[in-house]
Amino acid sequence: MDEPGFKLSEANVAVIGLGLMGGSMALALRDHCRQLKGLDVDPDTLSLAEQMNLVQTASSDPRVVLNDADLVILACPVPAILSWLEQLPAYIQQPCVVIDLGSSKRTILTGMQELPLNFDPIGAHPICGKETLSLRNAEGGLYRGATMAVTPLERSGLNANQAVRQLVAALEAQMVVEEAAQHDRALAATSHLPYVLSSALVLATPPDVERFIGPGFRSTARLAGTPASMMLGVLETNRDQVLERLKDFRAALGQLEQALERDDMPALQTLLDSAQSRYQTLL
Amino acid sequence: MDEPGFKLSEANVAVIGLGLMGGSMALALRDHCRQLKGLDVDPDTLSLAEQMNLVQTASSDPRVVLNDADLVILACPVPAILSWLEQLPAYIQQPCVVIDLGSSKRTILTGMQELPLNFDPIGAHPICGKETLSLRNAEGGLYRGATMAVTPLERSGLNANQAVRQLVAALEAQMVVEEAAQHDRALAATSHLPYVLSSALVLATPPDVERFIGPGFRSTARLAGTPASMMLGVLETNRDQVLERLKDFRAALGQLEQALERDDMPALQTLLDSAQSRYQTLL
Repeated sequence: MDEPGFKLSEANVAVIGLGLMGGSMALALRDHCRQLKGLDVDPDTLSLAEQMNLVQTASSDPRVVLNDADLVILACPVPAILSWLEQLPAYIQQPCVVIDLGSSKRTILTGMQELPLNFDPIGAHPICGKETLSLRNAEGGLYRGATMAVTPLERSGLNANQAVRQLVAALEAQMVVEEAAQHDRALAATSHLPYVLSSALVLATPPDVERFIGPGFRSTARLAGTPASMMLGVLETNRDQVLERLKDFRAALGQLEQALERDDMPALQTLLDSAQSRYQTLL
Repeated sequence: MDEPGFKLSEANVAVIGLGLMGGSMALALRDHCRQLKGLDVDPDTLSLAEQMNLVQTASSDPRVVLNDADLVILACPVPAILSWLEQLPAYIQQPCVVIDLGSSKRTILTGMQELPLNFDPIGAHPICGKETLSLRNAEGGLYRGATMAVTPLERSGLNANQAVRQLVAALEAQMVVEEAAQHDRALAATSHLPYVLSSALVLATPPDVERFIGPGFRSTARLAGTPASMMLGVLETNRDQVLERLKDFRAALGQLEQALERDDMPALQTLLDSAQSRYQTLL
């Protein structure tokens, strides 16, 4: 690569948050950057990171991790991302690209907007993961083939754009560029609503039916296994869109319920057939 | 086995319906019975069955398939099971065990109750499968490790009970015996409601968010891919229980929605934490 600007292969990368997403990212980036450091506040995670030889330096001290960073990747829950965006200027004076991996983007981009000018920020959201978080469950191939939704700010410069492109290439992911508002609207439908539905399903499940759980329930309920600590900040920062999606969902559910209540099987069949054909179009 | 009664290894087995469930069962039973015949009304399925050498005889003619059957396995959608229960006496005069694989049991057991006395009927419901039906997707290991919910009738005799036990052993499945009413109540919660929710989710999903679909949506929406032809009869014959479960689901969803609407994050967290811990208990 002879083009000017950011070069991942020559960059000092700092991953903040060594959970499922940050840990998997560190595993995938090992051979793609000059230096890889990781920050986590959990002592067990830090010792596991050392055992795994995950990064050159794993520490809970931001000064140690951030002092020479060219690229900071914020791989923590949304409230922590917002808090780090406020703290970064105290630790970083050098030019530095900032990429977050949060699942809602509007509020995070507003936070990024406030960063001093030595920062070149850009939003990114990898649409992958699983309900079992933490470094223990990290996988180097987690991002492979996944969509990385990239949400640039107006101020996002050459370095940020190149960094995110090179990151996506290193992860073998696929980049989709979208405005933050459109991203949040779409993700409310494809991720945040499904999480709320799975949670409601589990809450409504009588405890004594456990013996009759099979792959169908397991699949529909899976997202309810996600720790609330991960999702609460997402729901809070995408509240308006999630509430919109809930309204549409309730309307669709109401139609199905009404057909069943009336014992109107032709109407129920029409709805279910149309759900199946939309499923096939979507997936 | 020197105990008296039914012996699968010496039985002529007829599988009615060579789709995902019947085809997978035939694959698994090949070496466990004396003779295996299969009936299907779809010519393509019959030729595929022949290509696969799935059964000794594959035909759409009930006389050919049923004339010497000691065990009939009804592996078709619920309305077809009900219709076969009415038709079987015209084709079978010999002593014959009848097992169905339907996902709702009360109506089917009522139908079984009407069978002449040469029949020894018992209900069974394998809690496994996938949204892609048809023989093309059959797998010999589909039932391995799965729960087989067995719902005996009062009239179910030694042969029926032995046949189902030997069938479960041959499939390497696990047997759980339950009354039909309890089965239907539980399955409304663990299977039929999740199918309705997945369908409603898909119906409520805007078409333009396709690019942002990841594993979470895929998992929550998966059951919506099931053909309505499979599920409509299940919902119809378990209507009261599904409507009960829908009521409870709407209440749980309403709590989550209300907390989000009020921006009451502590209340939302309590609900989501409790969903996560119930998920872990259930699964």
